[in-house]
Amino acid sequence: MSLIEGLAVHAAGAELLPFRYDPGELGHEEVEIGISYCGICHSDLHLISNDWGISQYPFIPGHEVIGTITSTGAGVRSLKAGQRVGLGWQSNSCGTCEWCIQGMENLCPAPEATCVHRHGGYASHVRANARFVIPIPDALLSDEAAPLLCGGITVYNPMRTHGVNPSSRVGVVGIGGLGHLAIQFARVFGAEVVAFSSSASKEEEARELGANHFVNSRETKAMREVTGALDLIVSTVNADQEWGAYMQALRPTGTLCFVGIPPSPISVQAMPLIAGIRSVTGNPTGSPYRLHEMLDVAARHGVKAKIERFAMSEANEAVERVKKNKVRYRAVLAN
Amino acid sequence: MSLIEGLAVHAAGAELLPFRYDPGELGHEEVEIGISYCGICHSDLHLISNDWGISQYPFIPGHEVIGTITSTGAGVRSLKAGQRVGLGWQSNSCGTCEWCIQGMENLCPAPEATCVHRHGGYASHVRANARFVIPIPDALLSDEAAPLLCGGITVYNPMRTHGVNPSSRVGVVGIGGLGHLAIQFARVFGAEVVAFSSSASKEEEARELGANHFVNSRETKAMREVTGALDLIVSTVNADQEWGAYMQALRPTGTLCFVGIPPSPISVQAMPLIAGIRSVTGNPTGSPYRLHEMLDVAARHGVKAKIERFAMSEANEAVERVKKNKVRYRAVLAN
Repeated sequence: MSLIEGLAVHAAGAELLPFRYDPGELGHEEVEIGISYCGICHSDLHLISNDWGISQYPFIPGHEVIGTITSTGAGVRSLKAGQRVGLGWQSNSCGTCEWCIQGMENLCPAPEATCVHRHGGYASHVRANARFVIPIPDALLSDEAAPLLCGGITVYNPMRTHGVNPSSRVGVVGIGGLGHLAIQFARVFGAEVVAFSSSASKEEEARELGANHFVNSRETKAMREVTGALDLIVSTVNADQEWGAYMQALRPTGTLCFVGIPPSPISVQAMPLIAGIRSVTGNPTGSPYRLHEMLDVAARHGVKAKIERFAMSEANEAVERVKKNKVRYRAVLAN
Repeated sequence: MSLIEGLAVHAAGAELLPFRYDPGELGHEEVEIGISYCGICHSDLHLISNDWGISQYPFIPGHEVIGTITSTGAGVRSLKAGQRVGLGWQSNSCGTCEWCIQGMENLCPAPEATCVHRHGGYASHVRANARFVIPIPDALLSDEAAPLLCGGITVYNPMRTHGVNPSSRVGVVGIGGLGHLAIQFARVFGAEVVAFSSSASKEEEARELGANHFVNSRETKAMREVTGALDLIVSTVNADQEWGAYMQALRPTGTLCFVGIPPSPISVQAMPLIAGIRSVTGNPTGSPYRLHEMLDVAARHGVKAKIERFAMSEANEAVERVKKNKVRYRAVLAN
């Protein structure tokens, strides 16, 4: 019996402490990954604090994993030991519902999340159903690729769903872990990109990442200047905003897509929805198929996370820096 | 010079009074319609009361017109005098913007509405650009077809936009002028239809119109029973509702589409949008192309408005009945 060593939270908001668990026998369809890197996503912070009321303690956070397969279940044919792979938010699904059988496993009503009610990636190893373990293209560096597994797919998916193309104008709200990847992907799709941030200090880096324009979202005048300008706005922020101002920035048939979760309900007037056939929607991670595709696109077009590396033993310090929005733009724990 | 005779409102909320105006010379691309029938739409009531702050007095309301062409401008080739035609909310558009040139004139940023800042259909005649004047298929009766020109297209358009088909489950909120047409069209598309109303008394008629299920929207238990059931919900009501309950009724990837305008902002939680890629959107009337198509579908599949006929001289009484929600389901004025 070999134990998995990790860092677990034992109560809401508590610090991470060394923790070992026995993962039991490897499932027929499972693989075990020896973890090289694990990104720190804001969702980890929400789970640590039990903000969503779904956390069960103790648990090991982490769901942006890159590592090497150490063993495979008897039924696994698509992957083999030694292969470099990634694992994101979702670690399994029912496999039989209408969503799973059409390759939209991220909509499965009985999903398994990598670090919800199970142990995730701030650890030596993690296990998952082989369908959700994705080979990493050679061109990607492991540490820069880890945040693609959750942050990357979350912003890539809406660009595909909403048909972003070289005629598109895309807004990205919030230039952080997700936003800095959204800017890069939107440019890869050929779109003209407007970065929205409440921090004027992020303008230069947003432009370096590929944004064509920068709008300080605290400036009413600047917000007005983009009235009716955008086909898609991807909001990555976890804070409440005046969403009406972003609705105004949409062109007819445009879409405001939430990937960050604001604490309060989203309130919009009916008239801009009706008169311009505008939409408000959201996106949760992506299917395994889309993960393969997104990693391939990232590899071929040079999309990568800007990261700050921390040793796994510095996880508490890293989490604190993420919490204070001090990280540019994603913290990654290294084994 | 021949004057047009109609019924105009001279101040916000005032009664309709006989009114004559000189329409001037017929435009090169215009036609004049001798009006047989004009439906009374809730938008007329909003314009009469200046609820939207855009009314200019005096004006003649009315934008669900059926009649016969009495004269055509020199440049009109698609229509001729004597032809039976309809006219809806929109009477012209710029014709040159990106929306007009792709056949989405209903999104033109410089539209002309039949009875906004001009005189509409509670009259002997009305004029409009020939592109917005649509021939009426022989199978349709004029009085039952009049409400299709605005109410009908407004609920038909979202069914096409959102791909309603025999695998779909469609909800219709509010069983009135628009809702009773939405139920019929949804059934024509082959969908299973759930009618939502706060009036239990409407169940029987909703079922006669084609609804497979009826949900009393005041009953929390009944609302819970349709959790995750619907692909598309078309809300036709002009009153505030607990929109969260309707979001709950949507399946993953489902859409809540507003065609009625609630007075307060629409407030929804981010989580159901994100987790299920659900959308909130709206729809304004439809393009001339879609009007042609909708009338053809109505003719071939027997969709028609249930109406109460009033003489044009009874317009004030009819408007009062509409205002009090007493009409089942559309009032139509007859010349």
